[in-house]
Amino acid sequence: MIEVKTIEFKNTKRTFLTNAWYVAAISTDVEGEKLFHRTILNKPVLIYRKINGTPIAMLDRCPHRFAPLHLGKRVGDDISCLYHALQFDCEGQCTHNPHGNGLIPKAAKVPTFSLMEKYGFIWIWIGDEAADPSKLPDYSMLTNGHSNSVGHTYMHVKSNYQVIIDNVMDLSHVDHVHGEIISTRGQLTPQIPKVEESSTHVKASWKWKQTPPIMIFSNFLPKPAEEAKHFVQVTWEAPSHIELIIGATQEEFDGELNFHNTTSQYDLHTTTPETEDTSHYFFATRRNHLEEDADFNQFKIKAMHDAFEMEDIPIIENIHTNMGTTDFFSLDPVLMSNDIAPVKFRKSLSKLVEKEINQS
Amino acid sequence: MIEVKTIEFKNTKRTFLTNAWYVAAISTDVEGEKLFHRTILNKPVLIYRKINGTPIAMLDRCPHRFAPLHLGKRVGDDISCLYHALQFDCEGQCTHNPHGNGLIPKAAKVPTFSLMEKYGFIWIWIGDEAADPSKLPDYSMLTNGHSNSVGHTYMHVKSNYQVIIDNVMDLSHVDHVHGEIISTRGQLTPQIPKVEESSTHVKASWKWKQTPPIMIFSNFLPKPAEEAKHFVQVTWEAPSHIELIIGATQEEFDGELNFHNTTSQYDLHTTTPETEDTSHYFFATRRNHLEEDADFNQFKIKAMHDAFEMEDIPIIENIHTNMGTTDFFSLDPVLMSNDIAPVKFRKSLSKLVEKEINQS
Amino acid sequence: MIEVKTIEFKNTKRTFLTNAWYVAAISTDVEGEKLFHRTILNKPVLIYRKINGTPIAMLDRCPHRFAPLHLGKRVGDDISCLYHALQFDCEGQCTHNPHGNGLIPKAAKVPTFSLMEKYGFIWIWIGDEAADPSKLPDYSMLTNGHSNSVGHTYMHVKSNYQVIIDNVMDLSHVDHVHGEIISTRGQLTPQIPKVEESSTHVKASWKWKQTPPIMIFSNFLPKPAEEAKHFVQVTWEAPSHIELIIGATQEEFDGELNFHNTTSQYDLHTTTPETEDTSHYFFATRRNHLEEDADFNQFKIKAMHDAFEMEDIPIIENIHTNMGTTDFFSLDPVLMSNDIAPVKFRKSLSKLVEKEINQS
Repeated sequence: MIEVKTIEFKNTKRTFLTNAWYVAAISTDVEGEKLFHRTILNKPVLIYRKINGTPIAMLDRCPHRFAPLHLGKRVGDDISCLYHALQFDCEGQCTHNPHGNGLIPKAAKVPTFSLMEKYGFIWIWIGDEAADPSKLPDYSMLTNGHSNSVGHTYMHVKSNYQVIIDNVMDLSHVDHVHGEIISTRGQLTPQIPKVEESSTHVKASWKWKQTPPIMIFSNFLPKPAEEAKHFVQVTWEAPSHIELIIGATQEEFDGELNFHNTTSQYDLHTTTPETEDTSHYFFATRRNHLEEDADFNQFKIKAMHDAFEMEDIPIIENIHTNMGTTDFFSLDPVLMSNDIAPVKFRKSLSKLVEKEINQS
Repeated sequence: MIEVKTIEFKNTKRTFLTNAWYVAAISTDVEGEKLFHRTILNKPVLIYRKINGTPIAMLDRCPHRFAPLHLGKRVGDDISCLYHALQFDCEGQCTHNPHGNGLIPKAAKVPTFSLMEKYGFIWIWIGDEAADPSKLPDYSMLTNGHSNSVGHTYMHVKSNYQVIIDNVMDLSHVDHVHGEIISTRGQLTPQIPKVEESSTHVKASWKWKQTPPIMIFSNFLPKPAEEAKHFVQVTWEAPSHIELIIGATQEEFDGELNFHNTTSQYDLHTTTPETEDTSHYFFATRRNHLEEDADFNQFKIKAMHDAFEMEDIPIIENIHTNMGTTDFFSLDPVLMSNDIAPVKFRKSLSKLVEKEINQS
Repeated sequence: MIEVKTIEFKNTKRTFLTNAWYVAAISTDVEGEKLFHRTILNKPVLIYRKINGTPIAMLDRCPHRFAPLHLGKRVGDDISCLYHALQFDCEGQCTHNPHGNGLIPKAAKVPTFSLMEKYGFIWIWIGDEAADPSKLPDYSMLTNGHSNSVGHTYMHVKSNYQVIIDNVMDLSHVDHVHGEIISTRGQLTPQIPKVEESSTHVKASWKWKQTPPIMIFSNFLPKPAEEAKHFVQVTWEAPSHIELIIGATQEEFDGELNFHNTTSQYDLHTTTPETEDTSHYFFATRRNHLEEDADFNQFKIKAMHDAFEMEDIPIIENIHTNMGTTDFFSLDPVLMSNDIAPVKFRKSLSKLVEKEINQS
C-alpha cells in the first residue's frame, strides 16, 4: 500500500564469467592491517594482507549470523567476527569459538577466494572451479620498467562492464569524445582497423601519420611540430582485460611500430563486474619516456583518471541507462566498420559465458 | 546477496494512450541552439529547433551505440552524436558517417516524432499511427489576446497523470485545499455540477453567488465588496487536457456567463505521462483584465505556479503513494456527487486506452 | 527504456503475524492535537488522541480519494480530510459530507485499529480478527515504580524485525559488540544458557560471577571493586516482545536472583515490522536504584539509546543486507550453543505465522 512499483523486466541473464581472473583491487589499496571489502560478481568479499604481506580473500560474511567480517578485527592473521568473536584463519577455517564447550562446528568455514598479486594489482578468482594461475594474463610489461614510469587508478562505473570494454575496443571515438591532448586530427576515425581474433582474444590495430604528432608524445619527439608515424593497438583478453599500446615516431625504419621503437605508452584497461549494472574499472599505464620522473608520473595518471571520469564514463553510464538492458544485440544496433572489434569480443565472451552457464 | 528486495506487484498495465497529442514542452523552453530532452511516455526524446525555428523531435538515442543524442552537437540543422560523430538530419536520417568507407548504413535512422507548435506549447505525437493534425484540440482562446495577458508554466509531479486530472475535474476541493485568494466562501462545494459528456470529452460546470466576490476578480469588479454571480467550467478532452474557464460579474443579464461577458480567466491544464508514476504538468492562463500589464502577468503566473506546487501537488503525490496502484477503481473508492466528472473521464479514457492496446 | 532494473527475487513471503499486539508508538509521541502517522505492517496508520486523551488509530487513507488523513485537520474528536472535507469520527464513520445533498455514503468508513495504552506505550492490533485485550503481554513491572525510574525510546532499523530479536535473545554478543560499560569480562560468552520454551515463549537465562561487577551496577553495590553474582534473563513472547532482566548482588542467599533482590534493571525490547525490510524498535527500561533521580534517568535512557544506535543497529542492518533474504534458515547458518534461544523463537514464530497465513 505504501510504495508504487511498476517494473519492466528487461534482462536478468548473467553476463559475466565466474571462472576467470579479475582485478579485485590495486595492490596499494589493501595496506597494513586494513580489512578492505568490495562487492565482486555480486558477492561481498573481504580482502586483507597477512602479516607477511600475502593478500587473502574470503566471503565477507560470517557463516554463523552473516555479519560482514570486515567489521571485525584482526587477531594475527586471523579475523575475529565483531558479533560473536568466532575467529577464522586465512583458509576460512574457524579457529576459535568462545561459546559453550568451545568446540569448532564442522560447518564453520568461510568460503575463500584465490588471489594472485601481479602488475600492481590483486587478482581474484570467484568461480567454483579451481583457480588456475596459468590463466592469469601476462601484463608484465606494465611493471618491467622504472617504478616511476607506471601508475594505477580506479573508477566506479554505473554500467554493465561490457559497455566499458566496447569503449576501449573501438578507439574511433577518440577524436569525438576527448580533447586536444589525444586528438589524432581526425586521422584515426576513418580507418578500418586490422582485426585478429581467437576464441579468447580480439586485437585491433590502427596506423596513421599526423601533424603535429599526438600531444601526449609530441614534446618527447625530435621535431614536436612535424609529422610523425603513429600506431595504437588494443588486445582484449577474456573476460575483461584490454592491453592498449600507443606510440609515435619520426624515425624511418621498415619494421612494425611497437612500445620499444617509438615514444609510447603501454596501458591496461580491466573491468570487474560489481553487479550486472555496476562495474569496477581499473587502469594502469607505463610509459617509455621521462621514466624516472615521479612528479610527471603523478601528473600523468591523474590526467588520465580525470579524462575517464569526465569524458568516457558519463557516456558509458548514459548508454547503459539509455539501453535499458544488458543485451546489446537485442536492440538491433546499427553496426559499422569501427564496430568489428567490439562485436567480436561481445560474441566471443557471450559464447564463453553461455558455456559456463550450461556446464554448471 | 547484496540487496534485499521484496516487491509487491500492484499494477503494470499501461494507463496512457500513445496515439494522441501531448504537450512536450513550453515553446520558450526550447530556445536557440539548445538540445532539450525529456522522457515522454517512457521514451527519451530530444527536442530542438531548426535554424528557421521549426521544432524537431526524435528518439534521444543514437541507433549505433545508444548514446543520448542531446549530449551531441548541432551541425546546422543536423545533430552529430557525441560518441562517434554519426550525423542525423531532422528526419532522423543519417547524413554523415566518418568511419571506414563513409557509407551510410541503411538502418542508421533515428525514429522521429511529429510536433505541432500551438498556444505557446510544443505538442508531440508518440504513437505508431500517423500523427493527425486535425486531432490537436483547439485552445486558440489562450493566445488570441494581448501577449501580456497569457502565461505558461511547468511542474514535475511524482504521480500517475490521472490523479492530476482528477484534481482539476472536481473543483469541490477548492475551499478545502486552497487559501483565501480563490475561496468561494463554501459556495462551490455543496453544488452538484452540471455534467455533459461524449466519448472523448467531459464537461462540468458550476454557478453560484458569493459576497465578497472571489479575490482573484474582486478588484476588477465595479463593487469589490458586494455580491457577484460566478461560474466555473472544466472540459476534459482525451487524453489529458482540461480547459478551465472561471468568471464573475455584478451585471444583470439573462444569457450564460462566459469568458467574454464576465471578469474572467481561461486556463489550460494539461499533463503528459513521463512514466506510469511520474508526470509532466503544463499550465497556461489567459485573463481578460489588465491584459497589457507585463508585471501583473508575471505575478499572476508565478502565484498560480506556487499554489500548484505548495497546495495541489503535495496532495496529488501523497495520493499516488497512498494508493499503491494506478488502478483507481480496484481500491473501491467511495464516490459522491462531486466525483461524477472525474469518474466519467476515467471511464472514457480507460475505454480509449483499452481499445488502443487491443488494436496493437 | 529509461532505467535498467535487474532484480533477483530472494523472498516475498510475509514473516510477521498480523493478529497480535504490537507497539505503535511511545505514549508521549502522540501528544495534544497532533496527527501522528506511521507505517505498521505495511499499512499507513493515523494515530491521535481524543480531547479526553484516549488514543485512536485508523487507516491513514480517506476512502474517497485516498489522501492521507494525517494531512487533514481536527474537528473536535473527528478528522476532516484536507482534500474534500469529508469528516470521520473515532470509529472511522463519516459524520459530515459537505458535497451535494450532504448524505453520508454508506461505504464512507475508514478502517480503524484497536489500541491499548499500557506501560508507556500505545499498542495496536492490525489483523482482521477481533483484538483481544487479554492477549496483551503483562509488562506492568515497567511502570510499577517511580516515574523517574523508567525511560522509553525509539529507533528505526533497516532490517527485518527478526534480526533485532535474534540480537537480544542471544546475549553472548555483549562482550564483543559493546564497550566497557556492560562488559561481563568474558564471563557470559562461554555459558550455555538455560532455555525454557512454550509455543509462544522462549526464556534464556545466564548466571555468573565477575570482578569488578558490571559497570552499570558496580557503583550501586556495597563494594564496587569486588566480586558480585550476576544474572540476566530474556523472555521472548510472540510475536516480537522481549523482557530482559539483569542484576548483580554481593549478598549471600540461596534463592533465585531477581529484579527485587539484586541491583537491577527491567527492560522491554519490542519491535514492530514497518515493512519486511524495515522495523520500528521500541525500548523501555526501569531500574531499582536512584529511582527518583530525573537527571540520571535521562542520562541512562540516552546512553542506552546511543549504544543501540551506534553498536547494535549497524550490525543488525549489515546482517540484513548481507543475508539478502528474510529466510534465515535458507542460508544454512552454522548454529552453536548460544543460538538455542534465537533458533527456538524463530521456529515458534514461523509456525504461528504459517498457521495464520493458512487460516486466512
